[in-house]
Amino acid sequence: MAHSTITALRGTLVSFDDDPFLVEPKTAFVHESDGLIVCRDGVIEAAGPYDKLRATLAGDVAVTDYSGCIISPGFIDTHTHYVQSEIVAAPGKQLLQWVSDYVYPVEEGFADEAHARKVASFFCDRLLRTGTTTACVYCAVYPQSADALFAEARKRSMRLIAGKCMMDRNVPEVLRDTAKSGYDDSKALIGKWHGVGRLSYAITPRWAGSSTPEQLEAASALWREHPALHVQAHIAENRDEVKFVASLFPERRDFLDVYEHYGLVGRRSVLGHCIWFSDSEFTRMHERDASIAHCPTSNMFLGSGLFQLRKAKNRAHPIHVGIATDIGAGTSFSQLATLNEAYKVAALVGAPITALEGLYLATLGGARALDLDDRIGSIHPGLEADLVVLDPNATKLLAFRNARSRSIEETLFFLMMLGDNRAVRATYVAGKLAHARPVDA
Amino acid sequence: MAHSTITALRGTLVSFDDDPFLVEPKTAFVHESDGLIVCRDGVIEAAGPYDKLRATLAGDVAVTDYSGCIISPGFIDTHTHYVQSEIVAAPGKQLLQWVSDYVYPVEEGFADEAHARKVASFFCDRLLRTGTTTACVYCAVYPQSADALFAEARKRSMRLIAGKCMMDRNVPEVLRDTAKSGYDDSKALIGKWHGVGRLSYAITPRWAGSSTPEQLEAASALWREHPALHVQAHIAENRDEVKFVASLFPERRDFLDVYEHYGLVGRRSVLGHCIWFSDSEFTRMHERDASIAHCPTSNMFLGSGLFQLRKAKNRAHPIHVGIATDIGAGTSFSQLATLNEAYKVAALVGAPITALEGLYLATLGGARALDLDDRIGSIHPGLEADLVVLDPNATKLLAFRNARSRSIEETLFFLMMLGDNRAVRATYVAGKLAHARPVDA
Repeated sequence: MAHSTITALRGTLVSFDDDPFLVEPKTAFVHESDGLIVCRDGVIEAAGPYDKLRATLAGDVAVTDYSGCIISPGFIDTHTHYVQSEIVAAPGKQLLQWVSDYVYPVEEGFADEAHARKVASFFCDRLLRTGTTTACVYCAVYPQSADALFAEARKRSMRLIAGKCMMDRNVPEVLRDTAKSGYDDSKALIGKWHGVGRLSYAITPRWAGSSTPEQLEAASALWREHPALHVQAHIAENRDEVKFVASLFPERRDFLDVYEHYGLVGRRSVLGHCIWFSDSEFTRMHERDASIAHCPTSNMFLGSGLFQLRKAKNRAHPIHVGIATDIGAGTSFSQLATLNEAYKVAALVGAPITALEGLYLATLGGARALDLDDRIGSIHPGLEADLVVLDPNATKLLAFRNARSRSIEETLFFLMMLGDNRAVRATYVAGKLAHARPVDA
Repeated sequence: MAHSTITALRGTLVSFDDDPFLVEPKTAFVHESDGLIVCRDGVIEAAGPYDKLRATLAGDVAVTDYSGCIISPGFIDTHTHYVQSEIVAAPGKQLLQWVSDYVYPVEEGFADEAHARKVASFFCDRLLRTGTTTACVYCAVYPQSADALFAEARKRSMRLIAGKCMMDRNVPEVLRDTAKSGYDDSKALIGKWHGVGRLSYAITPRWAGSSTPEQLEAASALWREHPALHVQAHIAENRDEVKFVASLFPERRDFLDVYEHYGLVGRRSVLGHCIWFSDSEFTRMHERDASIAHCPTSNMFLGSGLFQLRKAKNRAHPIHVGIATDIGAGTSFSQLATLNEAYKVAALVGAPITALEGLYLATLGGARALDLDDRIGSIHPGLEADLVVLDPNATKLLAFRNARSRSIEETLFFLMMLGDNRAVRATYVAGKLAHARPVDA
């Protein structure tokens, strides 16, 4: 009989039971200043005060001591393109031109599975080094580009969602599928990968501008056949993009209505950006229980605009929102660095977020946006043991600043504004150490 | 007879002879892919192609080999508050409330010179670690807070400009000087520090909201007596601040006119922010040959607004512009991180900057903004040898990205978007190694 594997970690625990945008933050937030997490076979078995919980452990169980560090649920990245890892920081263009000039040429390379594996491996390593344990990822149009990512994520036991892009118009010939091949290839990938280990498939009609009505219909058919899947697409990122979609679908009342018309908006629809949304679009996102992936570094880098987070989290009709790097338009793999800019976007529209709101977006908020909060996103018995250990004294500036901290909220805010992958002391995936940063002597 | 001290550095040299916003960037930019810089007694003696220049050196001169790295003039930070180092990342407020709640309480501590020395030391070390060799700095109201910074900068042989804040109204009692004491204390500091080593004094009427007309007049009198000095002040950072100043000076046509009226706008006036400027104010800044300190991370963090850099660099009436961290509202000491956000601010207003424009702002642009381009800001014989050595492969992401670089401009852009103090391999002040980052094995 195989022995079970136990991992026990001591540190300051932070987690959420609910959404601090919607309920009193103090009641949503769970904080154990000297805590212990016990994980068995990849699942959180217990979490609570160290003093109390330590006594319940068998004497021979080793506790890894992260005292002075903060243990959070692993970060969740709700929108990113692994195939764009090589074009991070490509200069000087707005969305449509940027995609034509930089994205399409580089995505062509992902017809080559060996190349795809290499980049997928780099990408997965970046996620783990920055404390991100789950991501919702766009691959290229080629099925083998999805194979490569799923294989690399599987190797690392990661909970990861991905899909091959469906795109059959307005992109270079070499990057086009058809309504039929896009459907067939996606279906084959679903059969091959969905539910294998911790992998899930996302039906991925890239955006309304690059899919014909026939392809959107095929994507919709696929979702009806596999209703447990996710759907991911881009929406209302840039004003020219919105105009272009309006010109392609003049009969639809707005951008969201295009996806609604084809039955692509509902629970587990993860729509990226949502910057140029009308009030009606915000309300309908709520009514359909769909999710927003907010991509602040990307939106600023491309000059796309400023997302109205408070509108999305309006208590009258709140929407699930997760935070997202949107690599390669995003400029960092780090969710801490991304929260820094989420704060700034929110400040520029006059409503900065708190540290608790930020941490929620990167953890339980992301899990809810992906309808995975029964698996990940909190420190709670029964959930999968994906964890990030944050060191609030990782850099000289952080340490200098944290010396004046008067609360866990302040320390979390310093991490969010001043932290990056250096602040990630360790990352655990399904209870196993997946990355550890050497501690300076 | 003392021997002279020679430092010789090999690497890729980058520098500017002119302003790439105003002339053809390729002609403004100087680039030597395998270059050598020879410094003697703190001054650049020669710079050029390695092959050619090496032969002219005495055989026993050791060359430090930074091949693969980029050697740039040291970065220049045109607006920062060392006394706010401890409140970087103080959450949730806009300018006026932020200053009341966070800045004033912490500045009170700088009456204690021992505390001031400690923070000044931390601050100067942060500058050098991020490759910044010159800064234009606000101290607290207390003369001893300026003494502390000057002493620490002098210890490091840095070219540094600073001044004690003059503020005699609308601030807590304990932080007020008077028109007379502000004048007297500033004058004493000028006598003590201006021209000592590489130090300069900046007359520092903090902003029109915290100085009485009498104090602005006293600052002006001081400048007339010492016309070689700098003047630094805040302007048009935030809409409420603009309104408040308008209410204090109803007889003045706009914010700039307040400083103009008191004779505080001219060459070596360094005005921070300039976000909420009218066209007239931009034009008058040009006519008076004054300078702007652009503080992008601060402006986003406080939600102050988006600076119109292209308006300031309009070829019809261009203004000197330098880049600035504006610690503590700014969120990073690194000029590379600051340029990342300068790019984003520019992208959000529809006119992103190029890598050359960014590097110019942080080097020669800053030197011109401070009227110091006859001393620093370029790699040119006769100028002071303040240099930063940048490693374009410093992090895994930088290295991955830089492997695809097709030009020095791309590599510089990657450094600007993805770099921070980790990308600073070494910093030289007056020809001497002042900081070196250990190279990973």
